[in-house]
Amino acid sequence: MNAAGTRAYFGRRYWLSASHRLHSDALTGEANAAAYGKCNHPHGHGHNYGLEVLVGGAVDGETGMVMNLVDLDRVVDEQVLERFDHGNLNLDPAFQHQVPTTENFCRVIFGLLKNALGEGRLEHVRVEETENNFFECTKSEE
Amino acid sequence: MNAAGTRAYFGRRYWLSASHRLHSDALTGEANAAAYGKCNHPHGHGHNYGLEVLVGGAVDGETGMVMNLVDLDRVVDEQVLERFDHGNLNLDPAFQHQVPTTENFCRVIFGLLKNALGEGRLEHVRVEETENNFFECTKSEE
Amino acid sequence: MNAAGTRAYFGRRYWLSASHRLHSDALTGEANAAAYGKCNHPHGHGHNYGLEVLVGGAVDGETGMVMNLVDLDRVVDEQVLERFDHGNLNLDPAFQHQVPTTENFCRVIFGLLKNALGEGRLEHVRVEETENNFFECTKSEE
Amino acid sequence: MNAAGTRAYFGRRYWLSASHRLHSDALTGEANAAAYGKCNHPHGHGHNYGLEVLVGGAVDGETGMVMNLVDLDRVVDEQVLERFDHGNLNLDPAFQHQVPTTENFCRVIFGLLKNALGEGRLEHVRVEETENNFFECTKSEE
Amino acid sequence: MNAAGTRAYFGRRYWLSASHRLHSDALTGEANAAAYGKCNHPHGHGHNYGLEVLVGGAVDGETGMVMNLVDLDRVVDEQVLERFDHGNLNLDPAFQHQVPTTENFCRVIFGLLKNALGEGRLEHVRVEETENNFFECTKSEE
Amino acid sequence: MNAAGTRAYFGRRYWLSASHRLHSDALTGEANAAAYGKCNHPHGHGHNYGLEVLVGGAVDGETGMVMNLVDLDRVVDEQVLERFDHGNLNLDPAFQHQVPTTENFCRVIFGLLKNALGEGRLEHVRVEETENNFFECTKSEE
Repeated sequence: MNAAGTRAYFGRRYWLSASHRLHSDALTGEANAAAYGKCNHPHGHGHNYGLEVLVGGAVDGETGMVMNLVDLDRVVDEQVLERFDHGNLNLDPAFQHQVPTTENFCRVIFGLLKNALGEGRLEHVRVEETENNFFECTKSEE
Repeated sequence: MNAAGTRAYFGRRYWLSASHRLHSDALTGEANAAAYGKCNHPHGHGHNYGLEVLVGGAVDGETGMVMNLVDLDRVVDEQVLERFDHGNLNLDPAFQHQVPTTENFCRVIFGLLKNALGEGRLEHVRVEETENNFFECTKSEE
Repeated sequence: MNAAGTRAYFGRRYWLSASHRLHSDALTGEANAAAYGKCNHPHGHGHNYGLEVLVGGAVDGETGMVMNLVDLDRVVDEQVLERFDHGNLNLDPAFQHQVPTTENFCRVIFGLLKNALGEGRLEHVRVEETENNFFECTKSEE
Repeated sequence: MNAAGTRAYFGRRYWLSASHRLHSDALTGEANAAAYGKCNHPHGHGHNYGLEVLVGGAVDGETGMVMNLVDLDRVVDEQVLERFDHGNLNLDPAFQHQVPTTENFCRVIFGLLKNALGEGRLEHVRVEETENNFFECTKSEE
Repeated sequence: MNAAGTRAYFGRRYWLSASHRLHSDALTGEANAAAYGKCNHPHGHGHNYGLEVLVGGAVDGETGMVMNLVDLDRVVDEQVLERFDHGNLNLDPAFQHQVPTTENFCRVIFGLLKNALGEGRLEHVRVEETENNFFECTKSEE
Repeated sequence: MNAAGTRAYFGRRYWLSASHRLHSDALTGEANAAAYGKCNHPHGHGHNYGLEVLVGGAVDGETGMVMNLVDLDRVVDEQVLERFDHGNLNLDPAFQHQVPTTENFCRVIFGLLKNALGEGRLEHVRVEETENNFFECTKSEE
């Protein structure tokens, strides 16, 4: 029943707070209001985003781990939390040419973590926008 | 890092309250009691069902969305909440020829939403029956 | 820093499922609909009620406990769960002369547990009706 | 066991999203940074605030309710959600002469709801700022 | 809309408490400290593990169920809870030749339940180690 | 509506993992087994304890805070987390003359934080032992 060598998944949750305003330059003012409702308010608003990161891999025979959580924390801190936490998404270079919807925020985070973690480690990223809304990007859709 | 065109998932949670009684006409009284235990009590009982709906699709290049949540809410309201919330599942036409177990309730909801959302949008439906029990139907099992 | 003899509180959560219909014989049909909305539907509906019981008392010097959880579980089972779980509140004698609102259900549970636990043990009872609604009765309001 | 006339409590949870920047004109730039850390970032950030409102009162003998939830929802919508949801707290008149910390936001909400609900109804207001931080104002501290 | 015969999933959550110490005989003392940090403390520490079990199968045409929860509870009790709950993982035979990381604990549980449930029933096992960490093993990785 | 000077409460949640064995030298082996059940197992077991600390005080007119969360975190780290996290409660001096029940653990934490925070700041401490059990100590019971 020694599980070394078989594949398992390790998931970890993080939190970040940020503000955003949903507004697309490709749309008229009316179309923006219709598409985004209250999220189009000119002064922006904010969320506590819950971030769930799932990595997969073989269980290491010596350490019994898929990945050390200290290493995952360092990558997520450097790539995501230091850049976006307590900031305004609209001002980040990643959102100069796309609206900072949570779909797009999720895709940006997926791209940053995939590159930093290396080939085949990142399984999915989930971003919880509110208690009742979440967005996901998965490996198989790349 | 513009994510437009790639696929992402949008999940949303709803709540509904309903009563049901588990009783199969195909089983004897004893077999009903054995299969359903307390859920076979003649007067019915109730649950707050948590409903999670996951839709998938390309991120729209203009709006940055997979699907507008206002549109999803309207579909779920019309197809599911107006029909089942604060009602008795046993009296609904969907349960005239099958027991209103949460497995079957989940399948009925999956079918209603799949039709209303159109080809390929609905990824999965999860129905939480209690804090510790849930049921799922997924696209790939259709 | 030996805490024996000082007072502490022990809280425990239980779950029960039941159906109810809100309808007051003291009100007209219209007034019933106005007061209870969807909860007045004739066929009843149901909830998973979350029940939180808080007991207080001196920490026993030998066992280091306020109350053994096995004892509390037995009392709650006998007084509340066996009577109401998977049942229809409207059919219980406690609701022959009062509407089974969750306010009243909370009061009924408080009274049953207060008697069974003995003088001064029960601090409060909280009944969670949905994710976003709860009701409480407390010792000081007796 | 008729509970009519005795006191009970009714609690209800709401959610709102807003952005704020913590900065006190009474403090130097350095003191602001020391007091508020990342919350002093010039571009603001945001939160999903969880709001819990607890009202107390006698259980009405006819309706079996402390307060109709439809009425509480209307008051909270008018006084709090329409004013602050999806907005920037720093721009609201309530925060022209005080920093929009969550302590102060909680106090402002308590004052608005107390006035609107009338004498003696509002027991406490809790504002959840993140999964791990919350703030409360209670009736007895008025 | 009769769903009998189509496939659905049934998930159920369990809780167990156990202590473990992370220490690999294949590593030096320094390497153990580096790999496991506080989890390498000689006296062990503990967790409330949340266990989520997902089983899949056709919905039975008579009972409307994927699997009776009473049967699943019995299997999980016999295979997992009676063996590990309120115990010390390091002393269990399953961890004589591998470190009791939660990755390995998850694999052990997956293997035990897969055997007891029979071919093709077990879809995945998730073990929640803390509020923010979880581990999963899935059928497709077998 | 400036709230400066009025009293408010600030609550914050922490997590720690520890193992304990419930065994009282004042009781026979049989009485220990009867009182503590599985918690009396000789090898100990563990929990993720959730710790909620509530402090009260006037809202500072300049900072708009009851207490800076950085200061509260430092006190809780120094007094509680560094001492008990990832340890064995039975080996701590605080539990040489009393059983490490969660009632007693809660009392010990209350005493440590009350001293460190200074007169009148600490309102209550809540320790969550499992999803369904919690213990509290409050200021008024001192």
